[in-house]
Amino acid sequence: MIRIGLLFLFLATVEAYPVCAQPSNASSAAASARAAAAAREYRSAHQHEIAAELRELLSIPNIASDAPNIQRNADQLRLMLERRGMRVQFLATVPGRGPVVYGELLTPGAQRTVMFYAHYDGQPVDPAAWTDTRPFEPALRTHSIAAGGRLIPFPAAGAKFEDDWRIYARSASDDKSPIVALLAALDALRAGKIAPAVNIKFIFDGEEEAGSPNLEKTAVANAELLQSDVLITCDGPVHQSGRALVFYGNRGVVDANITVYGPVRPLHSGHYGNWAPNPGMRLAQLLASMKDDQGRVRIEGFYSEVTALTPQEQAAIQAMPANDAELQNELQFGEAEGAGRTLVELINQPSLNVRGLRSAYVGAQSQNVVPEKAEASLDMRLVKNINPQRQVQRLIAHIRKQGYFVVSGREPTPEERRKYPRVARVDSDHGYPAARTAMDLPVSQAVARVVRAATGDVVLMPTLGGSAPMYIFEDRLRMPVIGVPIVNYDNSQHSHNENLRIGHFWRGIEIYAALMAGLAW
Amino acid sequence: MIRIGLLFLFLATVEAYPVCAQPSNASSAAASARAAAAAREYRSAHQHEIAAELRELLSIPNIASDAPNIQRNADQLRLMLERRGMRVQFLATVPGRGPVVYGELLTPGAQRTVMFYAHYDGQPVDPAAWTDTRPFEPALRTHSIAAGGRLIPFPAAGAKFEDDWRIYARSASDDKSPIVALLAALDALRAGKIAPAVNIKFIFDGEEEAGSPNLEKTAVANAELLQSDVLITCDGPVHQSGRALVFYGNRGVVDANITVYGPVRPLHSGHYGNWAPNPGMRLAQLLASMKDDQGRVRIEGFYSEVTALTPQEQAAIQAMPANDAELQNELQFGEAEGAGRTLVELINQPSLNVRGLRSAYVGAQSQNVVPEKAEASLDMRLVKNINPQRQVQRLIAHIRKQGYFVVSGREPTPEERRKYPRVARVDSDHGYPAARTAMDLPVSQAVARVVRAATGDVVLMPTLGGSAPMYIFEDRLRMPVIGVPIVNYDNSQHSHNENLRIGHFWRGIEIYAALMAGLAW
Repeated sequence: MIRIGLLFLFLATVEAYPVCAQPSNASSAAASARAAAAAREYRSAHQHEIAAELRELLSIPNIASDAPNIQRNADQLRLMLERRGMRVQFLATVPGRGPVVYGELLTPGAQRTVMFYAHYDGQPVDPAAWTDTRPFEPALRTHSIAAGGRLIPFPAAGAKFEDDWRIYARSASDDKSPIVALLAALDALRAGKIAPAVNIKFIFDGEEEAGSPNLEKTAVANAELLQSDVLITCDGPVHQSGRALVFYGNRGVVDANITVYGPVRPLHSGHYGNWAPNPGMRLAQLLASMKDDQGRVRIEGFYSEVTALTPQEQAAIQAMPANDAELQNELQFGEAEGAGRTLVELINQPSLNVRGLRSAYVGAQSQNVVPEKAEASLDMRLVKNINPQRQVQRLIAHIRKQGYFVVSGREPTPEERRKYPRVARVDSDHGYPAARTAMDLPVSQAVARVVRAATGDVVLMPTLGGSAPMYIFEDRLRMPVIGVPIVNYDNSQHSHNENLRIGHFWRGIEIYAALMAGLAW
Repeated sequence: MIRIGLLFLFLATVEAYPVCAQPSNASSAAASARAAAAAREYRSAHQHEIAAELRELLSIPNIASDAPNIQRNADQLRLMLERRGMRVQFLATVPGRGPVVYGELLTPGAQRTVMFYAHYDGQPVDPAAWTDTRPFEPALRTHSIAAGGRLIPFPAAGAKFEDDWRIYARSASDDKSPIVALLAALDALRAGKIAPAVNIKFIFDGEEEAGSPNLEKTAVANAELLQSDVLITCDGPVHQSGRALVFYGNRGVVDANITVYGPVRPLHSGHYGNWAPNPGMRLAQLLASMKDDQGRVRIEGFYSEVTALTPQEQAAIQAMPANDAELQNELQFGEAEGAGRTLVELINQPSLNVRGLRSAYVGAQSQNVVPEKAEASLDMRLVKNINPQRQVQRLIAHIRKQGYFVVSGREPTPEERRKYPRVARVDSDHGYPAARTAMDLPVSQAVARVVRAATGDVVLMPTLGGSAPMYIFEDRLRMPVIGVPIVNYDNSQHSHNENLRIGHFWRGIEIYAALMAGLAW
């Protein structure tokens, strides 16, 4: 466990900021560029402190269900925000889960309020799968593992980080580094004596990777406190081209775990094979029935609720960099799903993904048995307008149509196992729907303008492939939701060897400083 | 680790046995019944010592690849055999593997030589899957776990074992208890002053559960030493009805591990799902293509080498107890594979069994990724005349026909992954073919007669569903191979919670004593 003392102090308070007027589009761009430059200067001079704050946060294990540790994360965030003079509240703590961490920094005279969203929990980890490092002991490499990066010690105070270096840890990208970047952006503005253009609110979720089951209730209960003119979500990677990205939607998601049953105990496959039903084969046949060879889902009604993209959204997709072939080459596969459609077209469709399979053992641990069960874990991504529970019901209806008796939330009884030729258990979480904000709103255009001014370039995307419960802010709190991610795309988020490219992190600080100081519409 | 001193000594030598003449069928049956009765008396009086010897052997871990421990098993067997005055040899030790343990006890004047086969290695274990006990720490229960059996201490010397009690340990049934039963049978005959009717040879394999890759070479190199009139294999369970069983064949087997590839690293399923190929779904589609809904294998030529059963074999199948419905009820499934054919009919066909599946994670450990690979482990059982390697080639040809580029024994290269739409790796072991001895040979009938005389009843079966490398003795050493198993069918062999029912073990001692003293043809 790495623990690094934070030696620097923040003495400023809200009152230290000068009052600002509402700037024009041109002055907004100029303010953005100025703030980005100030942030660049600040982060160059304070690399060590910024990285140390990130390392300290990454060292706290953050699986949503790990109650004591997720609370430690929240406590650490409170300290980090309070050091910046923010007013901090823990919202509606659910027993056994981390609270929503809310922070607020009002700007005297500001007409607009911008809320930044991030989450501080991470996906489950399998430490054995990590290469030479451990998920909650941040480590530094000279490049990505794929590019042959080797482990190096973190540099001493004063020594420089190279842009291509990468920090390896769970949530290095998803989603702790944006939090630290937001705070570094505040520090940079303060150091540069640049006033924010807006009131700033932070909302940090502690169970996003567990599907944010409590966030909606919490947000609605605190609707007045959270009221803002726009929500900017910091979750997600930038474009694979490396260019900065602004996106206007997130897919929704709902998970399902399917168990298919064989004999009640594993049987010797010689004595009982070909007669006792094999759950692995039955599961394979069931899954195979769900998609055609081209990857199109064959579940009835799966695409029925999809709404068409607007002409502007279609145009944005057409304008995006065409890098599928390059990406496919890097990812080493010979044929994509989707019958030739591009990745960005496909993520505007709902998906069905087999995220895991398990039955007995493979490889050296194989045993010659007819296993007693086989499991598949699916995630289904949703686009705007698809109801998560209706999608699960379509899945279950499809499984029934394949001849299965289906139970949920419990094991089948011996009587049910004996009675029905095929028995499956399907458990799903509550899931959440997609969000999508119109790209032609003034604020939508303003965010794009700021990011372009800060970085010289921006890719605009109607919907990110990844999910986040942004519907809460869009549908329930009635605010536009716009994504401004900062981390590298090849960050292995959700898997082992998650990492953050340092150069992306630095640029992220600049982008967030520009948004805070330059966003106007 | 349990270690029990063997306090009893064996002073007799080969010379202690009287010379015997060749008996008639009737006298053979009488001798069998007499030997069984003597064995019953002996095992009733020596329960504690017999069980102690078994416990000691079960306490030595016996995975074939665990070289130091498998050698400890062999050393222990040498001691056990030498205590009975047997001449013991370790045959052709392969580095890193346990030797074939050979023992010999000649009967002066005997016209026939009977070799008993068993194996002392066991299937791999997953200790976490066992219920309240550990694989190599034998434990006693009042009944099977399924029947609510509770753990009890082994009885003190002099106290009785109940027939329904069960010993839980890896190889309690498969296949160490037959070895201890053979030795107890020898002790019983000696105690009853009954001479064996035949020369007795033991051959104990140390890598049967690893496919016996070296047994053939060892057997052929020692053909003269091993020459016998019949091989009796002690491996396998008795009939599910509980009745004693004699079988005349074993299926062969060959294993295959199939890996299907997705992107070179796990990808966020939101950002890349529906586009990056999902290896779990592709594996499901590939497996689903291998069998129809009724469980019939659709791989071209899969059944082409099957030879027809003889009228006598067909008649034996018809005469077997019809207990499929009862078994299905116990095993809790609503529909068997095989389009209504009986279990015993189906095990006279080759099979394809999915013994394991693995891709990323399921349940609470699920991560929202497109995994980088998915694996299935298959075992294919073979009947008489099917060549194992040809069956693997048929499997590979089928996979190619589904559009796959197939490699074996290595990972695909990045270039291959990029070039081919579908890439699979198929690794198989060498496997071995089935064995089948004619049921109407004099020795075949004689073995059935002895077992019937010893137990009052016998079920005759042309082929056992389980595999054992009996082709080595049948095809290479040119001897009939007949199976006389003793252990209960519901023994969870090959899986967790393997167990031996005590009553079956006792009866096994009686059967083996009857074979040694009564077998004549």
